[in-house]
Amino acid sequence: LSPVYTGLPLTVFEHMSGLARQLGAINLGQGFPDDPPPQALSDAAIRAFSTRSQQYPPMAGLPELRDGVAAFYQREQGLALTRDNVIITSGATEAVACAILAVVSPGDEVLLFAPAYDAYAPMVRRAGGTPVFVPLQPPLWQYDEARIRAAITPRTRAMIVNDPLNPAGTVASADDLAMLARLACEHDLVAICDEVWEMVRFDEQGHRSLLAEPGMEARTIKIGSAGKIFGATGWKVGWLIGAPEMAAVLAKAHQFLTFTTPPMLQWAVAEGLADPAIPRALIERWSASRLALLNGLFEADFAVTASAATWFACIDLAATGIAMDDATFADRLVREAGVATIPVSALWEGADTPTHVVRLCHCKPIATIEDALARLTRWR
Amino acid sequence: LSPVYTGLPLTVFEHMSGLARQLGAINLGQGFPDDPPPQALSDAAIRAFSTRSQQYPPMAGLPELRDGVAAFYQREQGLALTRDNVIITSGATEAVACAILAVVSPGDEVLLFAPAYDAYAPMVRRAGGTPVFVPLQPPLWQYDEARIRAAITPRTRAMIVNDPLNPAGTVASADDLAMLARLACEHDLVAICDEVWEMVRFDEQGHRSLLAEPGMEARTIKIGSAGKIFGATGWKVGWLIGAPEMAAVLAKAHQFLTFTTPPMLQWAVAEGLADPAIPRALIERWSASRLALLNGLFEADFAVTASAATWFACIDLAATGIAMDDATFADRLVREAGVATIPVSALWEGADTPTHVVRLCHCKPIATIEDALARLTRWR
Ligand SMILES: CSCCC(=O)C(=O)O
Ligand SMILES: CSCCC(=O)C(=O)O
Repeated sequence: LSPVYTGLPLTVFEHMSGLARQLGAINLGQGFPDDPPPQALSDAAIRAFSTRSQQYPPMAGLPELRDGVAAFYQREQGLALTRDNVIITSGATEAVACAILAVVSPGDEVLLFAPAYDAYAPMVRRAGGTPVFVPLQPPLWQYDEARIRAAITPRTRAMIVNDPLNPAGTVASADDLAMLARLACEHDLVAICDEVWEMVRFDEQGHRSLLAEPGMEARTIKIGSAGKIFGATGWKVGWLIGAPEMAAVLAKAHQFLTFTTPPMLQWAVAEGLADPAIPRALIERWSASRLALLNGLFEADFAVTASAATWFACIDLAATGIAMDDATFADRLVREAGVATIPVSALWEGADTPTHVVRLCHCKPIATIEDALARLTRWR
Repeated sequence: LSPVYTGLPLTVFEHMSGLARQLGAINLGQGFPDDPPPQALSDAAIRAFSTRSQQYPPMAGLPELRDGVAAFYQREQGLALTRDNVIITSGATEAVACAILAVVSPGDEVLLFAPAYDAYAPMVRRAGGTPVFVPLQPPLWQYDEARIRAAITPRTRAMIVNDPLNPAGTVASADDLAMLARLACEHDLVAICDEVWEMVRFDEQGHRSLLAEPGMEARTIKIGSAGKIFGATGWKVGWLIGAPEMAAVLAKAHQFLTFTTPPMLQWAVAEGLADPAIPRALIERWSASRLALLNGLFEADFAVTASAATWFACIDLAATGIAMDDATFADRLVREAGVATIPVSALWEGADTPTHVVRLCHCKPIATIEDALARLTRWR
């Protein structure tokens, strides 16, 4: 069997969720809301069971949803797209796999930034490529142009940029985006941009995609997720955005990965994307939960690293005066305090692994956040 | 971009369905029923929107569905399985991709039998392997042991066996299964068994899986599809079956392909699998449509090749006295007669491509079949 997989552990998310279920812990590990998705979306999906075909939709997605994704990005980010730029996938995980399999050939090197979502490196390896990790600099997880330049070789084919960044919750600055675009153009790299957190921002700033930087239009694959936008992680509807020539090749990878995505969920996502009030209402709810967690951690004297986006906040164990590595802390916390978290070292490959950061998911009911805070304080 | 994809056409299914939509033709090309899935399944899915979590289910699938798949195979095929043998996927296409990526490493050769479903070879290539095609012998598409033996080399790692066979509709004989198992054991091959048509049989015989042959338990990956069992092609719920050690590795490939599958659809499929009356009722309906097509073709003097399973029947153009290759016939038929079909040469790679067979999908309302037959006869 492929050594790419035989050597792998289960994802840390699955591992921690399994432990949380087994131990009855509050699960602030894997990122998902406890609330159901907006009722309007469930209603639309349920309606589609009786009003729409339940057989294969077109392989690249329902034209109505592809149009809807294009219109959504026009409205939210000022991007000029049409349906020819959009391929619907069975979640952003499929979109990541699809992009990597379409772009990376044996012998290629791919720049990844650590910490990195754990799906990237194994798929790069399975595509025959070599992941080259460039560490981001804690505590603010900044891009370091010199280190990136030093990592680029003639075999570098692509970079995978996750912005906003999971697990850190940070957002690339305008300067960072310009720098990454410059490097991509100089070295003729494809940028695979995992921007699934684009709508989950608490800094009142609209998301700016690397795709919008000069020179990036033809070399960028942008990935989005209805699961994150609508708090519907089980729906598994995502998409790939690229220039039409790029999208046509991505479609050919997609056709042999899942072929298509359930149409009732596609119809519902199209309805949801057309209504700007829906993501706004979610951000308000998630913002309140986030503040409850941040305030509670502050009051309990935990040092929290800056985070402006995503469903996550991170505790800096070292700065808090906890002399335990993150894996030990997370394991003891779930067993002894009944709170599951994610040790950030599990999302790190390469040198200088930081072992002093754990990630907590805050898109939960405030009562759950308060219960978790009480357990944390009691345990400490 | 990866040459595996840049060189590929769109799937013939997507191409013909697109033409059918565009031209308003009756679509007997891509295999899907026009009827919705059984109401009991839609009702169960709709119910799950309000009674079950819509967030990430466990990565390997809901335990209830994994148990349900195991119990289904015990009941239908006498296989002794537990949930540890079952990984739920986002359709059988994902299951095929997952199996190939988990099994095939660069340099491996993989035996494929032509005609072959068009997802296999590109995924083998994308995994770094070389597909080695062994033609099945028309008109009965029989396995030829000598040709298979001649194709096996020290680099052969796996065989992909599609039984019942799409597009032919044929079923491997007990002797064929024993022979394939013997070869797999002798040469230490993994058998990837695409058995999505296992329940769509019109020969009153229960399906026998290659997995049940002596020596195959640890080396077989069996693929199934709720879309085919329940006539729900848009639902995209499938599964992989393997020995627990194999399933554990497949899970690691799956976690980075789609991670998981919508839970409302998983709950509904679990309900459907528990009720033997549901697939039985579908087979009765599909059997009537099949007979309508076969009788109509017979009356109109089309030579039809023997087919005992799947949603498909094939016309033998040569035996019918039509001196046109299948691609030309299919293209003219959709444009001039308004009936979309699949030219079987599109599912063939390697030597001796037969160009005298077109596939028609018969799982349609009888009125649709009759309309298509009338168009065919008029056109001819
Ligand atoms: C696919 S499970 C992981 C979900 C997620 O985005 C996270 O928790 O980081
Ligand atoms: C995924 S589209 C093809 C569907 C099918 O199984 C067929 O028509 O053969």
